[in-house]
Amino acid sequence: MSDDVAAPPAFQVPDGYEILDWRRGFGRQIGPLYRKHDANGLSSMAFRVEEYHTNGMLNAHGGMLMSFADMSWGHVISVETSSYWVTVRLTVDFLSSARLGDWVEGASELLSKEDDLYVVRGRIWSGDRTLITGSGVFKPIAKRDPRPGEKAYKAP
Amino acid sequence: MSDDVAAPPAFQVPDGYEILDWRRGFGRQIGPLYRKHDANGLSSMAFRVEEYHTNGMLNAHGGMLMSFADMSWGHVISVETSSYWVTVRLTVDFLSSARLGDWVEGASELLSKEDDLYVVRGRIWSGDRTLITGSGVFKPIAKRDPRPGEKAYKAP
Repeated sequence: MSDDVAAPPAFQVPDGYEILDWRRGFGRQIGPLYRKHDANGLSSMAFRVEEYHTNGMLNAHGGMLMSFADMSWGHVISVETSSYWVTVRLTVDFLSSARLGDWVEGASELLSKEDDLYVVRGRIWSGDRTLITGSGVFKPIAKRDPRPGEKAYKAP
Repeated sequence: MSDDVAAPPAFQVPDGYEILDWRRGFGRQIGPLYRKHDANGLSSMAFRVEEYHTNGMLNAHGGMLMSFADMSWGHVISVETSSYWVTVRLTVDFLSSARLGDWVEGASELLSKEDDLYVVRGRIWSGDRTLITGSGVFKPIAKRDPRPGEKAYKAP
């Protein structure tokens, strides 16, 4: 079952999304995740709910959705600062669940930056259903290669 | 690497902890997790930080720590109500990081219950370092077998 993580996806990846080739650590373990940059350079992330993401009700586990919120909402900090970052605080409100096989997307909007703290408002959704809303506080640490052509996402 | 999830642990599990034999879903994917009931019936959960839990800095990934917070803090609801439960809201404050190989523990204290909503205060720690403090709101759903001899944990 765990080997599914690295297997090619047996479904049609929605237009514009590319798989993230994370080869180690927690990102690989819960992957694959996908990323999209639209024509305006705005980015979002996504994953398909597989068996190894589910709880006993065959919905996406809350822990998986929070892990995905952390990654997809914090990505704004990578774009804005070209830095690695750490999470300082995350608050998530669970509104609806995602079923096995659902395509789940996430993005965040930068609300403020003061000193080294970036505050974002984020959303996780599947189709027209909002699964999670919340906010995050992130702190950039070491610099990384810049990501040309990407912009922070204005959440709908 | 993923096969390590199901492999027997190559370290000495601290006294009182027993491995949770979760054979499917997200719990298996990020496991193994452990649970302990002390002489007073209070319970806590734990895991050892393995490579597949880490971020690029070889610390436990924030997503893993949040997933563990969800599971170890929500467990109070299982004990109190003998029910399965869903997470309504979770807030986590990251205070310190856990390194590869660290033994990480978590528990929560029930603060209030009103109607179907249970509010807990939780802590995640490693040795004498607090990694995360936070709070959670959980809602019981379907009943499950009772867990005799277990009590909710009074967080230190």
